[in-house]
Amino acid sequence: MKGSDDITGKGEIQIEPIGQIKNDFTEEVPEDYKDKESVIEIFEGYKEGLLGIGEHSHITVLMWFHKGDRSIKQVHPMADEDNPLTGVFATRSPVRPNPVAVSVCRLVERKGDELLVKGLDALDGTPVIDIKSYSPYDISDPEYPDWIPR
Amino acid sequence: MKGSDDITGKGEIQIEPIGQIKNDFTEEVPEDYKDKESVIEIFEGYKEGLLGIGEHSHITVLMWFHKGDRSIKQVHPMADEDNPLTGVFATRSPVRPNPVAVSVCRLVERKGDELLVKGLDALDGTPVIDIKSYSPYDISDPEYPDWIPR
Repeated sequence: MKGSDDITGKGEIQIEPIGQIKNDFTEEVPEDYKDKESVIEIFEGYKEGLLGIGEHSHITVLMWFHKGDRSIKQVHPMADEDNPLTGVFATRSPVRPNPVAVSVCRLVERKGDELLVKGLDALDGTPVIDIKSYSPYDISDPEYPDWIPR
Repeated sequence: MKGSDDITGKGEIQIEPIGQIKNDFTEEVPEDYKDKESVIEIFEGYKEGLLGIGEHSHITVLMWFHKGDRSIKQVHPMADEDNPLTGVFATRSPVRPNPVAVSVCRLVERKGDELLVKGLDALDGTPVIDIKSYSPYDISDPEYPDWIPR
């Protein structure tokens, strides 16, 4: 138990990365990232958390987008000036006060402390803070703005 | 821009909550939480990030499960001893090294710096670290272990 009970309301939270992304995306994520493979390297001490992960076809990866500008609170979504100025909390923009990314990708193979995955939209060296099993949320008929791709 | 460029690989990450949960769940989340309302109070300085959020029927809420035991790496999923011992990264258990919860809930109404939501599985006082628009991931035929409810 580490730093769990001393957090209330506005207190600061400390996160220790459990791994990092290794791939060829050093400058930017390519448009065809869904077809590209990455490796998630799990750091020492966290490997036992992977027990049974091979039974999943997909995983949810939480990452820290360390290059994201934390001061930005409003954006034109999809980097398109024609889309209305929108609060970052109403988007999935990578820039936001706490740039935690939530990505679902295919788990191709586990090799020891490495996970080979396909379709991850993250740069090489991105810290990984958590991995969860994928589960669909079954939201029927969600409503959202026109700028979100259907 | 705050503490964004000095993060690489294993460096520690500092998160400042952007809000907190207010509801009647002081001890535990009730089984019928999907029918219950909560309020997300957004802290000062983050309100402009909400612009346009009212156009969404559902939002994705990232929270810090401050009561989660960070030392646990394996669990019997769904708190059922009959389920096989499983690494936390292959589950959605609230106990894990970095207990960041990802929950999708219905946005009922925005009132200034408060969001009235329905179906949030979190205790009163839980720190909120991010809000994102909801979008379905369109994973066709995911495969996962039998202990995950269909």
